[in-house]
Amino acid sequence: MQIAIIGLGRMGGNIARRLMNHRHEAFVFDCNAEAVSALAGEGAKGAASLEELAGQFSGRRVFWVMLPAGEPTEATIRDLTPLCREGDVIIDGGNTFYKDDIRRAAELRPHGIHYVDVGTSGGVWGLERGYCMMIGGPEDTVRDLDPIFDALAPGYGDIERTRGRNTPDDRAERGYIHAGPAGAGHFVKMVHNGIEYGLMQAYAEGFDILKTKNSEHLPENERFDLNLPDIAEVWRRGSVISSWLLDLTAIALAGDKDLAKFSGNVADSGEGRWTLEAAMEEAVPVNVLSAALYARYRSRQEATFGDKMLSAMRFGFGGHVEIPQ
Amino acid sequence: MQIAIIGLGRMGGNIARRLMNHRHEAFVFDCNAEAVSALAGEGAKGAASLEELAGQFSGRRVFWVMLPAGEPTEATIRDLTPLCREGDVIIDGGNTFYKDDIRRAAELRPHGIHYVDVGTSGGVWGLERGYCMMIGGPEDTVRDLDPIFDALAPGYGDIERTRGRNTPDDRAERGYIHAGPAGAGHFVKMVHNGIEYGLMQAYAEGFDILKTKNSEHLPENERFDLNLPDIAEVWRRGSVISSWLLDLTAIALAGDKDLAKFSGNVADSGEGRWTLEAAMEEAVPVNVLSAALYARYRSRQEATFGDKMLSAMRFGFGGHVEIPQ
Amino acid sequence: MQIAIIGLGRMGGNIARRLMNHRHEAFVFDCNAEAVSALAGEGAKGAASLEELAGQFSGRRVFWVMLPAGEPTEATIRDLTPLCREGDVIIDGGNTFYKDDIRRAAELRPHGIHYVDVGTSGGVWGLERGYCMMIGGPEDTVRDLDPIFDALAPGYGDIERTRGRNTPDDRAERGYIHAGPAGAGHFVKMVHNGIEYGLMQAYAEGFDILKTKNSEHLPENERFDLNLPDIAEVWRRGSVISSWLLDLTAIALAGDKDLAKFSGNVADSGEGRWTLEAAMEEAVPVNVLSAALYARYRSRQEATFGDKMLSAMRFGFGGHVEIPQ
Amino acid sequence: MQIAIIGLGRMGGNIARRLMNHRHEAFVFDCNAEAVSALAGEGAKGAASLEELAGQFSGRRVFWVMLPAGEPTEATIRDLTPLCREGDVIIDGGNTFYKDDIRRAAELRPHGIHYVDVGTSGGVWGLERGYCMMIGGPEDTVRDLDPIFDALAPGYGDIERTRGRNTPDDRAERGYIHAGPAGAGHFVKMVHNGIEYGLMQAYAEGFDILKTKNSEHLPENERFDLNLPDIAEVWRRGSVISSWLLDLTAIALAGDKDLAKFSGNVADSGEGRWTLEAAMEEAVPVNVLSAALYARYRSRQEATFGDKMLSAMRFGFGGHVEIPQ
Repeated sequence: MQIAIIGLGRMGGNIARRLMNHRHEAFVFDCNAEAVSALAGEGAKGAASLEELAGQFSGRRVFWVMLPAGEPTEATIRDLTPLCREGDVIIDGGNTFYKDDIRRAAELRPHGIHYVDVGTSGGVWGLERGYCMMIGGPEDTVRDLDPIFDALAPGYGDIERTRGRNTPDDRAERGYIHAGPAGAGHFVKMVHNGIEYGLMQAYAEGFDILKTKNSEHLPENERFDLNLPDIAEVWRRGSVISSWLLDLTAIALAGDKDLAKFSGNVADSGEGRWTLEAAMEEAVPVNVLSAALYARYRSRQEATFGDKMLSAMRFGFGGHVEIPQ
Repeated sequence: MQIAIIGLGRMGGNIARRLMNHRHEAFVFDCNAEAVSALAGEGAKGAASLEELAGQFSGRRVFWVMLPAGEPTEATIRDLTPLCREGDVIIDGGNTFYKDDIRRAAELRPHGIHYVDVGTSGGVWGLERGYCMMIGGPEDTVRDLDPIFDALAPGYGDIERTRGRNTPDDRAERGYIHAGPAGAGHFVKMVHNGIEYGLMQAYAEGFDILKTKNSEHLPENERFDLNLPDIAEVWRRGSVISSWLLDLTAIALAGDKDLAKFSGNVADSGEGRWTLEAAMEEAVPVNVLSAALYARYRSRQEATFGDKMLSAMRFGFGGHVEIPQ
Repeated sequence: MQIAIIGLGRMGGNIARRLMNHRHEAFVFDCNAEAVSALAGEGAKGAASLEELAGQFSGRRVFWVMLPAGEPTEATIRDLTPLCREGDVIIDGGNTFYKDDIRRAAELRPHGIHYVDVGTSGGVWGLERGYCMMIGGPEDTVRDLDPIFDALAPGYGDIERTRGRNTPDDRAERGYIHAGPAGAGHFVKMVHNGIEYGLMQAYAEGFDILKTKNSEHLPENERFDLNLPDIAEVWRRGSVISSWLLDLTAIALAGDKDLAKFSGNVADSGEGRWTLEAAMEEAVPVNVLSAALYARYRSRQEATFGDKMLSAMRFGFGGHVEIPQ
Repeated sequence: MQIAIIGLGRMGGNIARRLMNHRHEAFVFDCNAEAVSALAGEGAKGAASLEELAGQFSGRRVFWVMLPAGEPTEATIRDLTPLCREGDVIIDGGNTFYKDDIRRAAELRPHGIHYVDVGTSGGVWGLERGYCMMIGGPEDTVRDLDPIFDALAPGYGDIERTRGRNTPDDRAERGYIHAGPAGAGHFVKMVHNGIEYGLMQAYAEGFDILKTKNSEHLPENERFDLNLPDIAEVWRRGSVISSWLLDLTAIALAGDKDLAKFSGNVADSGEGRWTLEAAMEEAVPVNVLSAALYARYRSRQEATFGDKMLSAMRFGFGGHVEIPQ
């Protein structure tokens, strides 16, 4: 199929590559002209503008927008709209808030433009492993795009089949699902990322307990001398908590058991927060997902005003002095 | 009554003073001889050793130990034991773990020594306001000591009576209760402190939201210019969240709206932790009390190993680089 | 002053009464005609419609809307707009989301209508104790309304003055503040309620530990027989955790130590959730405030789907069977 | 090697089987004679008493105790002690608290008995997949037992090697580690289980959000119709959150998308709680691990006393009535 990729960053560039590897025809655009030339050198057809990009299709146009969520994506879709003909497709493969998808699909529908949202997981490993995709949009359009999704997805690979699975539709087993109408794809991806935060924080807290058990701050007879790289490694082997995140942890610890090169200032993107908002709209208690997000907020501050408040109250009732260090 | 106070720190010294103000006879001891002289200058009878202290009583000996929990208190009680006669009383007024009380009471019982644990709240304000006391120990002994507790307690004061209260025993209304056998006093005090942590953290988080709403890190059109001292003050007046901790907060903010003199490294004592352990023994979910304790742990660290783990995993799957700052 | 109160529920009715007690002239409207007659019988001037209500003023019109947040309030303000003349004032005294205030103020400004948002705390006790008010809106308008706020506020009362307070503006000490422009009042009130949730949950968890310590599910030698009404009472007296919420708890426990008449299905209103959203916009970690909100969500469910997931996983890896009860 | 297995439950029986499959000689004992006969039928040598069991060895005796932690294990080790000769080995392969290991090792050392603690993960799948083992004890003894651990462990299998790993000791890669002296094995296993709780709860909360998004309690235009079995399946394929726990979840959902057969009353064993205690001894903040444990406590109750307290306070300040349902 012919498909245009807009945004050639870490994700977009590799998506174009994987599609070309599967013999799709990729048209590419990025405001950074060098990124375009690079992909052009690998067989994609580069464009210097959205207009030029739109002109490259011989039939129905399919635009895969792979840009940061928010204004960059929003503006691009605004600019694409007048370039589209009835029946064309705009795919947002980024990390858009699902309510924005719902709004956009409604805005584009009168123009006859089909809007598809694709939550895409896989990170820098996707080119090789394939991408896990959660798709929202009209049934027919999603079916029409199947060759694209099939190429991007990991496929069966050597992952063991799930016992008891018995459905005619094997797309989930090949690594993509049609989750529902517009927004459903990004909704599922949002929850995916919320879970991801929780899983990461669970490992982080556990390894923190292990690491601190070696600490000189403990009395000597309470200390161990635990080998964290070995522990991460052994847990990959037959334990209940083996996972891909643990594989990555094992790689990181194998290279540097103290993780000394990392600051511990941890960023968060919108999905963590939106997941909590979704939970609140549904009145679902999510203590773990919240705590995981808040740990990141806290990681980026030295002392909070809240901490000072505690010191001030302690000083107030007990005369405890906690002076600056 | 004659009573010996052992440990003349912030709490013990004022307890001796308040007892003397109520015409009790206070014998005092502290390893710091200056503390002893100071109290002696205010009318107490000082002693240079526990032996001397024990010799000052004309009848039944009552020792009020007011020392840091753990070894200091433990050692003192060990040393007092051989100095005691049948019928004497040892009171632990500190912040002892309630299971240590249960053990000690059992150890002292064969010697005919009565053990009483008193959880004492009131901090540096107790001399003036009186102390709130939660008492564990044998019914008879606690009754015998009533003049002491009556003197230390705040009494009715001008606090409004609780509607619907209708019990012959008015000790709770005067500021002390006999909570049960040995350990029950410190158990109730322990939970009191657990709650205290939770309350403090609730205010801390709320004020943090207010303070950060003024922050230059927010877009200008999302900012307010909230006056925190005024807000603390107004909440003292008819709001649902008025409390003594809020009174202290208002005092702190009136003096320094940025709390700039506080480091935000917040200490915690055993009670917070023991409260969680008690909750776990009872299988009671205590997310708020736990979060309050953990916020203090976190306040004393710059970056946790857990935070670095998160960065390492993010680097692993997404190539996100979070370098030291 | 002349003032119209729209919405004569628990809060609105008492606000009208307290204003009349302070010799203000209250015009009242409610869709429930009986509520109007009741107030009319106490000296208010009733109206059968907003039009009639608007017609009762001899000068500048001031409408205090005291309705449930969301559509009821929104619709009323929509209906009032065409009835207003330049210079008139609409006050929203309910629990509106502060961003709605910001929007409304901007919508009403071109009409010359002044919009004021008042976060009002005090509940059913406000008539007697006075209301704590957090006010947002234009400086001049808020000054003009001062007689209203002064009447509704508790005033100095016998609450001890905050040490170190030294500001010419004593409104906070009388129980109301002008927090900032439109929205600032409800923002501060929102955080107030967020804190309220946290405080309540801290007490709830602590008392749960006390209560369960009496439980027959514990081994007999680990049990106490704690008197919860006495404990709540004694903590009111000189302890660090005394508060108005504790006063209410003491009243509740004095009447029924098992709180048997309460279901434990706890409602929540918008403020708890909005407080978390504000915290997320500011990247402030709020584990306590979140846990407090989620405990309420959880209280309204028997078993969550999440719980079943845990059972399913446990069955998967360990063969643990947790069958329905 | 000759090895005795004491306790032939789900874990112990399969451990004996896997050892026999690897040509070790298994002697077996259980208080349930039928369990012994069953294993005997598969080639193990059964014993009717510990004495008989001890008598079956031709050389150094090695006892693998695989019983519930606490008294069952404790009593068995007590009974084994007099049956042991200098140089014999007692292995505790259960879920013992690591401080009990430290104590036992010290108690057995004077008798010349070597004590080894093995945290064993793998559940009912271990027979086939092999067990992940975390071992504490004396260096020499652990080396001597290597053939046993080698047989029980999964071995390299087809799990991809960790990039950057470069250590002469490949035991971790084959699925077992010598973590340190007595107690270190169970300490690492304890943290493993703590992490397991956190991971499980992260998935549980995420799937709860997905499930509730389908709920009739939401307004129709906010609902999706998400296919949970497909979502679990697709996340196994190239997503960041793929894991063995997710594999199990996919199996469970494939069989019953509503998990209707599970009650949602979730048990917890000692490790979750001990992990929090360890964190508290080290002052490590563990909000996620705590929340995961507390969710299980909460799952086993209908309404907590804490919930009723909230209702009582709400009634107190707002007149809100939350009646039993």
